[in-house]
Amino acid sequence: MAAEFDSLEKCLAKHLPAADLKTVNQILYGRELRSLSLPEDATSLASERDLEVQGYGIDAHQEELRAARVVRVGAIQNKIVLPTSASVDEQRTALHKRIGQMVEIAAMCGVNVLCLQEAWPMPFAFCTREKHPWCEFAEDALIGPTTKLCQEWAKKYNMVIISPILERDEVHGDTMWNTAVIISNSGQVMGKSRKNHIPRVGDFNESTYYMEGDTGHKVFETQFGRIAVNICYGRHHPQNWMMYGVNGAELVFNPSATVGTLSEPMWGIEARNAAIANSYFTCAINRVGTEHFPNEFSSGDGKPAHKDFGHFYGSTYVAAPDASRTPGLSRTRDGLLVTELDLNLCRQMKDGWGFRMTQRLNLYAESLTEAIKPDYKPPIVKE
Amino acid sequence: MAAEFDSLEKCLAKHLPAADLKTVNQILYGRELRSLSLPEDATSLASERDLEVQGYGIDAHQEELRAARVVRVGAIQNKIVLPTSASVDEQRTALHKRIGQMVEIAAMCGVNVLCLQEAWPMPFAFCTREKHPWCEFAEDALIGPTTKLCQEWAKKYNMVIISPILERDEVHGDTMWNTAVIISNSGQVMGKSRKNHIPRVGDFNESTYYMEGDTGHKVFETQFGRIAVNICYGRHHPQNWMMYGVNGAELVFNPSATVGTLSEPMWGIEARNAAIANSYFTCAINRVGTEHFPNEFSSGDGKPAHKDFGHFYGSTYVAAPDASRTPGLSRTRDGLLVTELDLNLCRQMKDGWGFRMTQRLNLYAESLTEAIKPDYKPPIVKE
Repeated sequence: MAAEFDSLEKCLAKHLPAADLKTVNQILYGRELRSLSLPEDATSLASERDLEVQGYGIDAHQEELRAARVVRVGAIQNKIVLPTSASVDEQRTALHKRIGQMVEIAAMCGVNVLCLQEAWPMPFAFCTREKHPWCEFAEDALIGPTTKLCQEWAKKYNMVIISPILERDEVHGDTMWNTAVIISNSGQVMGKSRKNHIPRVGDFNESTYYMEGDTGHKVFETQFGRIAVNICYGRHHPQNWMMYGVNGAELVFNPSATVGTLSEPMWGIEARNAAIANSYFTCAINRVGTEHFPNEFSSGDGKPAHKDFGHFYGSTYVAAPDASRTPGLSRTRDGLLVTELDLNLCRQMKDGWGFRMTQRLNLYAESLTEAIKPDYKPPIVKE
Repeated sequence: MAAEFDSLEKCLAKHLPAADLKTVNQILYGRELRSLSLPEDATSLASERDLEVQGYGIDAHQEELRAARVVRVGAIQNKIVLPTSASVDEQRTALHKRIGQMVEIAAMCGVNVLCLQEAWPMPFAFCTREKHPWCEFAEDALIGPTTKLCQEWAKKYNMVIISPILERDEVHGDTMWNTAVIISNSGQVMGKSRKNHIPRVGDFNESTYYMEGDTGHKVFETQFGRIAVNICYGRHHPQNWMMYGVNGAELVFNPSATVGTLSEPMWGIEARNAAIANSYFTCAINRVGTEHFPNEFSSGDGKPAHKDFGHFYGSTYVAAPDASRTPGLSRTRDGLLVTELDLNLCRQMKDGWGFRMTQRLNLYAESLTEAIKPDYKPPIVKE
């Protein structure tokens, strides 16, 4: 897939006649979303800092007994800043600085809940299978430098921040985890959510570094709604999305790092399917750019060793429980997506479509309990 | 959504420049599929009978130890033939005849496994909430006239046929079910699969007529692969799709009847997400046309009573485990989709992406077993 192709939505908007574009967008993206007007000083500062900003509103109908619960959700996608040959400290500091500039713009746009991309303070170095120096990017989730910085931002901007990092757990054997730290708008760390499903495909050699998460499917009740975090490869697992819904999430973030022609056709499908099936909002975030590494590595595909991870295609978007979604951010540029959404839409969709009422969880609790037995005999009918 | 809009794919092909079309299709639909050359006599007969036919091939790589397992899958979408004011027998007989013509063409195209649309021998009359005369369309799954007819076709054409009907179960209280009958290419009835999740939304008042299915998640081992049937509303439930996969399905049909601007943006998402997550093929089938009924009925939306169900938008398609999919059939015309697929792709995707290996079913068996308890306290973290 051409890395230079900027955006599916912009391509359709450019070439389709107006009436056709409307119908195509309805089929592909559901009802038309409101365009969100963002402050002039924010958009001009974004432009100065070479940052795409898009804003949309996803409304619910007005209820009699509940006030609208309107929240502005921010999602940031970005390239790494320095070459991966720079020192660990330099690379991280440069990312801290760059994201700080973007968080400032998010605050100017009134963002209440902000999520950064997976393992944001580092290059996605797991393709190399090298432990040195990449393991040094791992940080303590509670007192590491990245968490401290996010706490400052959270408090300063009155913003809930989800900060996905490579976690070092010193208490439990110095192990590493792929972890999202959830920081309240008060600046307090509310807790962490670890990646539940770990890939072993292509250059995604993450099982070399950390294990499947042990934090289950926690939901964080913030001032701006009940949120949860399903990290990267967990989006391929509908049962993972489902448990966050069962536990009450209204908004589930999917901070990711993904590349290539194989995963891109899945990108628009999975987080959106989860929003529909679970009557909640989802926000899928992917990095941009191509990351080059100092030493060559092979990709388990029989091809010669090489030094880059391919093109992270961005395309960050928000999906709503009514099957609508925002356009994606650029496939190539740093970006901030601001979505103003009314959380009341979640329960309205539960009432309307009834997907939660009709889930029959007892059937699946029983079926799965049977299915995991070593001597399970699936009900296969033969002639 | 305009009923007269024929096809999303044709619209894109008409307006996008070639290079852009290629990229857009890659992002939306995955790798380019092979066009399937169908016999001239079949396509000209189809044209005579006002029937759209499309054919595609979905290949897998050649293995050393297993031969390719190539199967031609057929999916039929159709309008009803007579007005709903005709007698029950006349309406059904007319549909039997029309579908017989389409099955003949499927046979000429070499189809091995054929699936018809949900409740195909009748109008989708559940919108009316009237019991009379619509309940008379219910038939015995084993010895009813529709099953008998399908058995003849199956034997004559050496074709597995999935025949979704309104079932009357005389042995168990004369109750009705929404049921798919699975008929072997030998002409024998292999068994039945009942609809697991029943809607209560808009005009889909099916819970007025029948209950949630009690046949679980059976998989049928036919000469042409292990198949299963997830009927209509069950496609909104990822856990339902998942259990068919856990039980070994390689190809899951989703015979449906769905209308409107609310469900159409979900249509391209759900069966496709299921194919990706479960490493199997799916085939989603929807009726076409607008069905008018003798008496007016209301839709639970505060609007005046009316006599039609709105526009069934067709768009039948096949999705593959590698995230590719065929284009959809027309949104307005009767159609036959023929897809030649290599079932070996299922295991190849399991090996490649590892979605099955990384499912952690034990975690979800435990989590759901806890979650269904009346006193369950979800893990909600507060500040």
